[in-house]
Amino acid sequence: MNLQQNLKPYVIGLDLGGTNSVFGIVDSRGEIKATTAIKTQGYNNVEEYVDAAVAAVDVIIEQVGGIELIKAMGIGAPNGNYYNGTIEFAPNLSWGRDGIVPLADMFSKKLGIPVALTNDANAAAIGEMTYGVARGMKNFIMITLGTGVGSGIVVNGQLVYGSDGFAGELGHTIIRREGGRPCGCGRNGCLECYCSATGVARTARELLDTTSEPSLLRELNPDEITSLDVSIAAGKGDALAKRIYEFTGEILGEACADFTAFSSPEAFIFFGGLTKAGDLLMDPIKRAYDEHVLKIFKGKAQFLVSGLDGSSAAVLGASAIGWEIQ
Amino acid sequence: MNLQQNLKPYVIGLDLGGTNSVFGIVDSRGEIKATTAIKTQGYNNVEEYVDAAVAAVDVIIEQVGGIELIKAMGIGAPNGNYYNGTIEFAPNLSWGRDGIVPLADMFSKKLGIPVALTNDANAAAIGEMTYGVARGMKNFIMITLGTGVGSGIVVNGQLVYGSDGFAGELGHTIIRREGGRPCGCGRNGCLECYCSATGVARTARELLDTTSEPSLLRELNPDEITSLDVSIAAGKGDALAKRIYEFTGEILGEACADFTAFSSPEAFIFFGGLTKAGDLLMDPIKRAYDEHVLKIFKGKAQFLVSGLDGSSAAVLGASAIGWEIQ
Repeated sequence: MNLQQNLKPYVIGLDLGGTNSVFGIVDSRGEIKATTAIKTQGYNNVEEYVDAAVAAVDVIIEQVGGIELIKAMGIGAPNGNYYNGTIEFAPNLSWGRDGIVPLADMFSKKLGIPVALTNDANAAAIGEMTYGVARGMKNFIMITLGTGVGSGIVVNGQLVYGSDGFAGELGHTIIRREGGRPCGCGRNGCLECYCSATGVARTARELLDTTSEPSLLRELNPDEITSLDVSIAAGKGDALAKRIYEFTGEILGEACADFTAFSSPEAFIFFGGLTKAGDLLMDPIKRAYDEHVLKIFKGKAQFLVSGLDGSSAAVLGASAIGWEIQ
Repeated sequence: MNLQQNLKPYVIGLDLGGTNSVFGIVDSRGEIKATTAIKTQGYNNVEEYVDAAVAAVDVIIEQVGGIELIKAMGIGAPNGNYYNGTIEFAPNLSWGRDGIVPLADMFSKKLGIPVALTNDANAAAIGEMTYGVARGMKNFIMITLGTGVGSGIVVNGQLVYGSDGFAGELGHTIIRREGGRPCGCGRNGCLECYCSATGVARTARELLDTTSEPSLLRELNPDEITSLDVSIAAGKGDALAKRIYEFTGEILGEACADFTAFSSPEAFIFFGGLTKAGDLLMDPIKRAYDEHVLKIFKGKAQFLVSGLDGSSAAVLGASAIGWEIQ
């Protein structure tokens, strides 16, 4: 690293979601100096998306003093492949659905700085390791509980990318082999079908259907119930809503017990909307984990909620990949 | 590393099994120059075991030219902890059952050379990476199919030891959550209950019990059937025996599909007695894997049988840890 590079105090982080693309310029302490955002969809092709993104990010680059002060850019994106800097067959991106998009290269050419890319859950794990509760940890598993269930696995202080760049798809391990719920991936019984926001809504509908227990959730149209509704009802003390979190947490704890047999992490770190339920979710996770984990691992792993501010965590995570570029 | 160390051409490998402790002196190309063995059990305490072991190994050390030519010793042992060089609560060792045995230190003091220790499956993985079919691979999973099911996981070219040294217990991930077979670990439905040599014998008894299909295995006392009997019957074309391997392979393939979601290895490498069944076992593994694995991983992983000679592989694996000592 030459002196000039050392002097570059900022990286750009891009949290590329299905709806919004949020950019932040971040310093080495994880302080976000400037942000901007564009819609992710609504472009005819990826070239138009990148043009719009660069136009927006140029404004905040000027705000912090110009591109000379930016070391690199990191992108967290669905179906992101770290090895190639590509987004591959991302079902939720209109311009990324049908092929392999060399997004890191495209941004790098336009901006003139190095660009790295990984999937959103891996970005969250690196963010947690760089700025959050995983600082100093060498072995941990990050589990993101959003629309889907994602994961980023750190072993020996390194992200696990695997032979093809796609390792860490723990949301698609099978937790119910018999009579499992159908999953968007075409199989049945994936963890994601139970422990994502959509999984929680599904559990709500199932419980409302199969019991006659009174619940605030009965006032809603069952087809429109979201995990947020469940969370609000649980907050008001609704017993059925609480039971939905218990069911969700128990399945997560059971799954984590198996993950421990793989990499024996010092901590599981949960991130995303569902974690707002706090102990309603975390207590059953821990209980089920203790019940299901192999004896030699009992009592060793911590169960933590991400220490990063929800709204900025994804951008921070993405930016952290920028620091890792050699 | 100083010049003298560079000149030391040999390491000692110890394959410490429940019955026998086999020692080999190995050169850097994986050639075994001398071997010896003692019984593992039948000592009043671990001190007596180590004394007997050192007396035996001293003889072969002299055969190859003396301790000055030995760089280090590597031990593969049940419940071995790489971080501490200890054997911890190993149920099958009379002198290692009830506590933590600092075996690496004990050998190191007696022999005057560095000693490293890990569990037998991890040793097999390192052996495969050093001398076998995994040479050059950075991401693979070794699965040992013996009395139990063990595993050694390699990520980014490094063994996965986890936060406590005990990572890689894939034989104790749960493959049948409902009505699973009881496992020696106190839980139900572990992979080991189905895919170990004892699991195969259990499957044989179950199939003999629940069907009336004719089989060579019916000539045997059901309580005494072993996986070897099943293998012999299958070799003679016995349909029921073949079906036992199919059942075993299908469960293994299903489990491997989940392991891929974790670390996306370039290969699964199988080792141990059951692999002698060849395609009878490997074909259903591959078929079930393809059926169960997440789409993005399909067709990527290889399924291989260990390239190391069965009788010496464990010693080679153990010796390979010796080379890794810095």
